[in-house]
Amino acid sequence: MTERSPLAPAAFPDLPPIAGVTARVARARYKNWDRCDLTYVELSEGTAVAGVTTQSKCPSPEVEWCRDAIPLGSARALVVNAGNANAFTGHRGRAAVEAIAAKVANHLDCQPSDIFISSTGVIGVPLPVDKAEAGLEAAFTAAPCGWEDAATTIGTTDTYAKGAHASAMIGGTRVELVGIIKGSGMIAPDMATMLGYIFTDAAIDPKLLQQMLSTANKRTFSCITVDSDTSTSDTVLAFATGKAGNAPLTSMDDAGADAFAAALGDLCRQLAHLVVRDGEGATKFVEITVEGAESDASAHRIALSIANSPLVKTAIAGEDANWGRVVAAIGKAGEPADRDKLSIRFGATQVASGGLAVEGYDEAPVAAHLKGQDILIGVDLGLGDGRATVWTCDLTHGYISINADYRS
Amino acid sequence: MTERSPLAPAAFPDLPPIAGVTARVARARYKNWDRCDLTYVELSEGTAVAGVTTQSKCPSPEVEWCRDAIPLGSARALVVNAGNANAFTGHRGRAAVEAIAAKVANHLDCQPSDIFISSTGVIGVPLPVDKAEAGLEAAFTAAPCGWEDAATTIGTTDTYAKGAHASAMIGGTRVELVGIIKGSGMIAPDMATMLGYIFTDAAIDPKLLQQMLSTANKRTFSCITVDSDTSTSDTVLAFATGKAGNAPLTSMDDAGADAFAAALGDLCRQLAHLVVRDGEGATKFVEITVEGAESDASAHRIALSIANSPLVKTAIAGEDANWGRVVAAIGKAGEPADRDKLSIRFGATQVASGGLAVEGYDEAPVAAHLKGQDILIGVDLGLGDGRATVWTCDLTHGYISINADYRS
Repeated sequence: MTERSPLAPAAFPDLPPIAGVTARVARARYKNWDRCDLTYVELSEGTAVAGVTTQSKCPSPEVEWCRDAIPLGSARALVVNAGNANAFTGHRGRAAVEAIAAKVANHLDCQPSDIFISSTGVIGVPLPVDKAEAGLEAAFTAAPCGWEDAATTIGTTDTYAKGAHASAMIGGTRVELVGIIKGSGMIAPDMATMLGYIFTDAAIDPKLLQQMLSTANKRTFSCITVDSDTSTSDTVLAFATGKAGNAPLTSMDDAGADAFAAALGDLCRQLAHLVVRDGEGATKFVEITVEGAESDASAHRIALSIANSPLVKTAIAGEDANWGRVVAAIGKAGEPADRDKLSIRFGATQVASGGLAVEGYDEAPVAAHLKGQDILIGVDLGLGDGRATVWTCDLTHGYISINADYRS
Repeated sequence: MTERSPLAPAAFPDLPPIAGVTARVARARYKNWDRCDLTYVELSEGTAVAGVTTQSKCPSPEVEWCRDAIPLGSARALVVNAGNANAFTGHRGRAAVEAIAAKVANHLDCQPSDIFISSTGVIGVPLPVDKAEAGLEAAFTAAPCGWEDAATTIGTTDTYAKGAHASAMIGGTRVELVGIIKGSGMIAPDMATMLGYIFTDAAIDPKLLQQMLSTANKRTFSCITVDSDTSTSDTVLAFATGKAGNAPLTSMDDAGADAFAAALGDLCRQLAHLVVRDGEGATKFVEITVEGAESDASAHRIALSIANSPLVKTAIAGEDANWGRVVAAIGKAGEPADRDKLSIRFGATQVASGGLAVEGYDEAPVAAHLKGQDILIGVDLGLGDGRATVWTCDLTHGYISINADYRS
């Protein structure tokens, strides 16, 4: 890994084991590197699964495989290949995915559809089946590893391993949730796909888990952007082994369902933030809140328009309270907005209000806020009750350096 | 002006005078600079006008003024202020626009609605009326200037003055069209709004001129992007003095209407390309053609998705034939696409076809093409007859440098 992002947490957190989950890593050598690049996670029988995948119309065969398998609701293993995305590889890519599923299903004596597979790395090169199979053989017999090893092994250009934890009480039973994630661009198809995996010992029906994950996804992973590019391979999967022994959750009306959904949402938000904090070239973590919109959906689109504006992102990099660029980004969103009702704040300081700069506002706290690492931009459209929050990072020379010569 | 863009033409072109059009420039000193920053163009009585403006929901008062005046169809003068965009300035900004229109209307003894006004520069600072009025007084009595002086005076961070020429035969009469334009980002609201002005001596009904300009706009100005940001102030106006003495055009069925529309389209394309060639930090001019889409509109959206992808643009900057990023940009466009029917070429070389890399394609001509200044990316979706072409530039450290510390 290259130098840690300046926005990285001080250390990988202490994460508890999840009963029914055993991770192992191995060297498949998908690239000419000497590091583990294959992650194999075994899940106990009866594990429920839910997932969300990229909206891309050109997804990888791994994404197609997961899309087909998720509705069946059960999982026995997860395989993650790092160093080769296997995307845009036609029938040869599909054959590689089928071969991995078949080999693991044979090893565990289960259905191939119980095997979940992701790959991340260079695009357009079919995943070499021989390396995958040799890597799996090595993984099957490797000693179990900890979360940090697994989080490191799924990474590619990530500058630090990313994991998080949450817990909830279901009836009188405490359940644990652990997540690991990789990604440092919303996407860079040949290096920085976002892949996230959540493991819990809770007993929960897969349909309910899917409903909770989809809800959490809308408020977390769908609210982050590094560079506006959407991956061919983005995947978030949640696995629930049921080993905690709680009364199984089957409906949002069950005792503890709200608490579990809240914990899942909290975990997803932590993981999403960890990705933004490793945004390529990022030096600032930016939270953008839009309120007063005609609807939540409208607020979300306006917030993303601001978060994806190269001019807003470069202004943040330059520690410049350039609210004019925020106005322009609101204007281009195509959503209802009335220039003369608009107000904007940086941190706690209102800088524009009612269609005009706030005359004589105190620039000192604004300048101090912008020199920090955590930036808040608040927009009030003054039209309705719609609101949304999204997270992004600044756009710096580092982003150009990383992306102008990654493949060459 | 700073160092000329490496993509700039060798010199400002020789442009003919347009009968009925007289340009003058003056120093209004909107900023603390010693250069002409107010352009005043007088138009003979009977001049027809047409125009297109930004789609921004937060436009400047100048844009609102032009939107109201364009449908009336007649023009007597154009005033362009450089150094202050007068956007997001509330009632004070509107008052400044009204004061300029009133002063010029009084000078020419015409309706205020015959006066067209644009401003470009810093956002959020009301245009100082006293400076505008003093500048206009100076301009009224200044000697007429040439096109290059006018093109220079409307510029802000542009690195070179931009002008172009076309001509057409209407019946037996030759008519001339001249355009000047400024802009080096699709938008940077405080510095790089796109403003374009076209002058012709043709006699043409304003409604027909509007129809032709709107058509040309769709295929030219709407097909360029530097950074995906849309301005609060973008404006293109076309003025037709009628001094050529041709039989007035009133319908597309008139003799010469097709020729004139073609010349207007040609001129718009030249002007649009000049803006891209001055894209902030640009080192490559990139043409992206999408064919085989389900419709032209779908092809246009996919082409823009590619052109706006930071990952594609940084790959071009790095001279990297990274077609994987092109696939990802197609996938995120949300338009019909079938990964396994897709083919992609750089220059004349097909690099991917039928959902796979073209095995053993010759990398030498691709590498040579990418080392050049003019890059072609061709996509065939293999679905239908829809096609579109857009133009953009690469994304470099120069863009970050320009935009991370413009205002501070």
